[in-house]
Amino acid sequence: MGQSWQEAVADKKRRQAEAIPKQWLISVPPATELTVTSIPESCGLLTDKEVLITKTEVDVLLKKLASAEWSSVEVTTAFYKRAIIAQQLVNCLTEIFVDRALARAKELDDHLKSTGKVVGPLHGLPISLKDQLCMKGVENVMGYVSWIGKYAEKNAALVDILYECGANPFVQTNVPQTLMWPETFNNVFGRTVNPHNRSLTSGGSSGGEGALVALRGSPIGVGSDIGGSIRIPSAFCGLYGLRPSYGRIPYAGAVNSMEGQDSVPSVFGPLCNSLAGVKIFMKAVADSKPWLKDPLAVRKKWDEDEYKLEDHGRGKGLVFGICWNNGVKVPHPPIIRALEMTKAALEAAGHTVVDWVPHKHAELCNTLNDIWSAGCLEDYDTVTSITGEPLIETMLAEASGEIAKTNFRPTGNASVSAYGLWQLQKAKLRLRQEYLAMWEETAKTTGTGRPVDAIISPVAPYAAPPHGMNSDASYTSIYNVLDYPSFVFPVTRVDPVKDAKKPPHKFLSEEDEDNYKLYDPKTFFNAPVNLQLSGRTQEEEAVIAMTEIVDAALKGK
Amino acid sequence: MGQSWQEAVADKKRRQAEAIPKQWLISVPPATELTVTSIPESCGLLTDKEVLITKTEVDVLLKKLASAEWSSVEVTTAFYKRAIIAQQLVNCLTEIFVDRALARAKELDDHLKSTGKVVGPLHGLPISLKDQLCMKGVENVMGYVSWIGKYAEKNAALVDILYECGANPFVQTNVPQTLMWPETFNNVFGRTVNPHNRSLTSGGSSGGEGALVALRGSPIGVGSDIGGSIRIPSAFCGLYGLRPSYGRIPYAGAVNSMEGQDSVPSVFGPLCNSLAGVKIFMKAVADSKPWLKDPLAVRKKWDEDEYKLEDHGRGKGLVFGICWNNGVKVPHPPIIRALEMTKAALEAAGHTVVDWVPHKHAELCNTLNDIWSAGCLEDYDTVTSITGEPLIETMLAEASGEIAKTNFRPTGNASVSAYGLWQLQKAKLRLRQEYLAMWEETAKTTGTGRPVDAIISPVAPYAAPPHGMNSDASYTSIYNVLDYPSFVFPVTRVDPVKDAKKPPHKFLSEEDEDNYKLYDPKTFFNAPVNLQLSGRTQEEEAVIAMTEIVDAALKGK
Repeated sequence: MGQSWQEAVADKKRRQAEAIPKQWLISVPPATELTVTSIPESCGLLTDKEVLITKTEVDVLLKKLASAEWSSVEVTTAFYKRAIIAQQLVNCLTEIFVDRALARAKELDDHLKSTGKVVGPLHGLPISLKDQLCMKGVENVMGYVSWIGKYAEKNAALVDILYECGANPFVQTNVPQTLMWPETFNNVFGRTVNPHNRSLTSGGSSGGEGALVALRGSPIGVGSDIGGSIRIPSAFCGLYGLRPSYGRIPYAGAVNSMEGQDSVPSVFGPLCNSLAGVKIFMKAVADSKPWLKDPLAVRKKWDEDEYKLEDHGRGKGLVFGICWNNGVKVPHPPIIRALEMTKAALEAAGHTVVDWVPHKHAELCNTLNDIWSAGCLEDYDTVTSITGEPLIETMLAEASGEIAKTNFRPTGNASVSAYGLWQLQKAKLRLRQEYLAMWEETAKTTGTGRPVDAIISPVAPYAAPPHGMNSDASYTSIYNVLDYPSFVFPVTRVDPVKDAKKPPHKFLSEEDEDNYKLYDPKTFFNAPVNLQLSGRTQEEEAVIAMTEIVDAALKGK
Repeated sequence: MGQSWQEAVADKKRRQAEAIPKQWLISVPPATELTVTSIPESCGLLTDKEVLITKTEVDVLLKKLASAEWSSVEVTTAFYKRAIIAQQLVNCLTEIFVDRALARAKELDDHLKSTGKVVGPLHGLPISLKDQLCMKGVENVMGYVSWIGKYAEKNAALVDILYECGANPFVQTNVPQTLMWPETFNNVFGRTVNPHNRSLTSGGSSGGEGALVALRGSPIGVGSDIGGSIRIPSAFCGLYGLRPSYGRIPYAGAVNSMEGQDSVPSVFGPLCNSLAGVKIFMKAVADSKPWLKDPLAVRKKWDEDEYKLEDHGRGKGLVFGICWNNGVKVPHPPIIRALEMTKAALEAAGHTVVDWVPHKHAELCNTLNDIWSAGCLEDYDTVTSITGEPLIETMLAEASGEIAKTNFRPTGNASVSAYGLWQLQKAKLRLRQEYLAMWEETAKTTGTGRPVDAIISPVAPYAAPPHGMNSDASYTSIYNVLDYPSFVFPVTRVDPVKDAKKPPHKFLSEEDEDNYKLYDPKTFFNAPVNLQLSGRTQEEEAVIAMTEIVDAALKGK
């Protein structure tokens, strides 16, 4: 009598397609057209004003919304149309609810008109949400066939806060099955691809957000990050993206995989085309006292003194540590060039750059992997067994039979006892203590009396790789286990001339050799190249301010 | 060839006895003399000035030390002598190192003399430490025979901070084996008893601190609290004692049981004869930026605005919720009288008192117990099996064959998998979310627009009970699982007239009936009666300020 899982998927996809207004369908280019970033503006669906609106950054958008120069209805309509174009190009959306979003936009416009006041600091702004952030009455599939037809009974705490701030959550975005992949593919919605080059991954697990925001189908998106899931899509899609510390942004009421894993938790954070948008989002949420809605939220208001870098010499003469490689894999030429560009720009701006020697990065990442592995397979099986949907074993394109090596997705080891897990967690804490002590020690050599102010490092040892080839999240997950806020920012783009393949170096490891072999500038055509800046736990304000300094230096400001 | 565990204990006890200067030995009263609180001043060992010094509260002591009116050598000597008296009366100490402490005191005096400046906000103050807080070069037994002869290679982070603040850690204090008992007894140092009535327990696990500070053998002590281990000894010994939120006081570098249990961690906090001492300690540590020494320390400076109760109407017209019982056990008459006294005092001071209805307290405490139980037996066995010392199964006096019922000490269930533990932790988080939502809901009924400002509740359903009879830590452990800062304060003392046994009530549970039967004013002769005030996570400043208000109201100020 019951539906097969394939039938459930077909039904869900039909409902998703029906949610798209017919007049917003475009003529989709063939799959061989790799770069689709210009299509939203060339396809003819958007009016000139809608193009203008969707090209406007968050800070300016908010001013125009607050002054009623632009209505929320027109801003929401513009982004919704563009999001639907994005969906047709890169398959980034899950839930689509146009009427609901436009009704909310009208309410906001009416409020502003009748009271003369904005509802909050994000008044009228459409915001896209990763498919974990429950909205009352909206289906919550999160990449699991088994969750088709599961509708949220109430809003996640963060969604309530966004509503209180006057924002307009307007679409939900795609994720990988289990959320524990650095690419985005599941049995329900399929694969999200990279708009800069559709043969490349958009990253994951917030890959729907990355692809959508990169196409400016949303002014700002909320992703989650347990091992790089905000930063990898931000980097692969050329965006700004912040992984905050545990508990800085509320998680309560959202759905997740591996719930109850308390040791290295996932966090929410923003992905955006502008740095200002990231700051505005973080300040708005912190000022909303998230600790009144989530018992795990840190009771720490937005700290303007920390933003003014009171612990970092007020931003003059900063000392940045550059991590050229993590001791396991040497990054590809475009990544090294981005590090060199950043170093030169910072030195030109009067800052100091020193080498950052990685401290037991492999050991930290392996311990993290073991912690997740302790229970992950039982967790995945519990959900997938409901419908019998297959557990996805590779992110490679279906045609290929090859299994991608990955050290990101936990391998699973159901035999670990609770006591065994405690031993892993104990080892992790020791490593965190060592890392902190090592960082503090740098105060002896910087010449400023302070330790190194921030670490700049690759987000991955490559730009966005082909589907199924994103085998390494250790450059990001190191900061999840350390709980260091990490801000990804765009630097450059893969350049076939400047980033020619180099002769083989002395390989650090077998994985390093494999990584070397993967590189070819043609494969990575048009891929963005980003880096990340990492600071101390719960130092989001300073990390944002220091990333502003790096960004300005790179832009020659 | 190897020493038996009994031989190792005999050797350790001999070394402990030898560490006591012979001239500080007193004539010890017989065990039948139950109350020993006056003996330090009557035994003749202390000079008048030493009596004066040891009766002086922390805030005044620090002023006299900072002005060099009293030297650290004389203050340290006075408290050391009194601590050694306490040791002879109630068996509260573990490590004794007089020369080292006096040398440190002299250094501090010399520094003040030569520079005119104090080393820090705790300049010259002797501080006692629970036997978990490693001091470089000092033995770290922590109640385990297996750890005899284990010397700390470096200071715990908190010890480093106390040194930086100018304090003088001068003794270490007794704990129960495993730390997971609310009384204090182990195979090495034996039992710590209550100075108000030696037939009663001093509580645990920081029972050495409680007994020592109550005898004014230390101006302030540091305990730890995973289920009530600061608050229970504070209450049973008549002290002020604060259980801060996770990570507010650094834990790094200390030893502990159940290391790696990340879900409901132990925290350090102060026990003191004065409320001012608790505030001074908390502010000094927070201002020392503990997050630079401990990766788990919250990056939150001492917040003077929160201390001024900016989130609580600036302290005017507060609304307190009183939890009369937890739905499982009705407290004994002296505890109910203390609640009534507090209610009357607060109302007389212009505040409002409402009933606080416990929300799933039993479910919260059972979940907590299950989380600890998931791995505790393997943890205990790993340590005790080294020497074969027996795992302690009861805190009853050795003569009795009865096994005390306890729902505090985790029962142990080695068959729980890591995934099973995650499910418990997930359930716990749901309960925390419910509790927070329930608390927020009270804003609808307080009349102030704010939710209830703080909860006042019993610390236990009884005052200090006889040894082995402290079977219930649920009144305290509820706030460990919720992570609410909780401040214990003295209210009254068991009074044979006012606290006569009442006729049986309709029992809430079998445990409630057992608890009713336990009561007899004679049994609890002279026992202090304390209560606790609990606030929101990471709201230590406000909890301290609100406890000051309650304390002043009780004192008729």
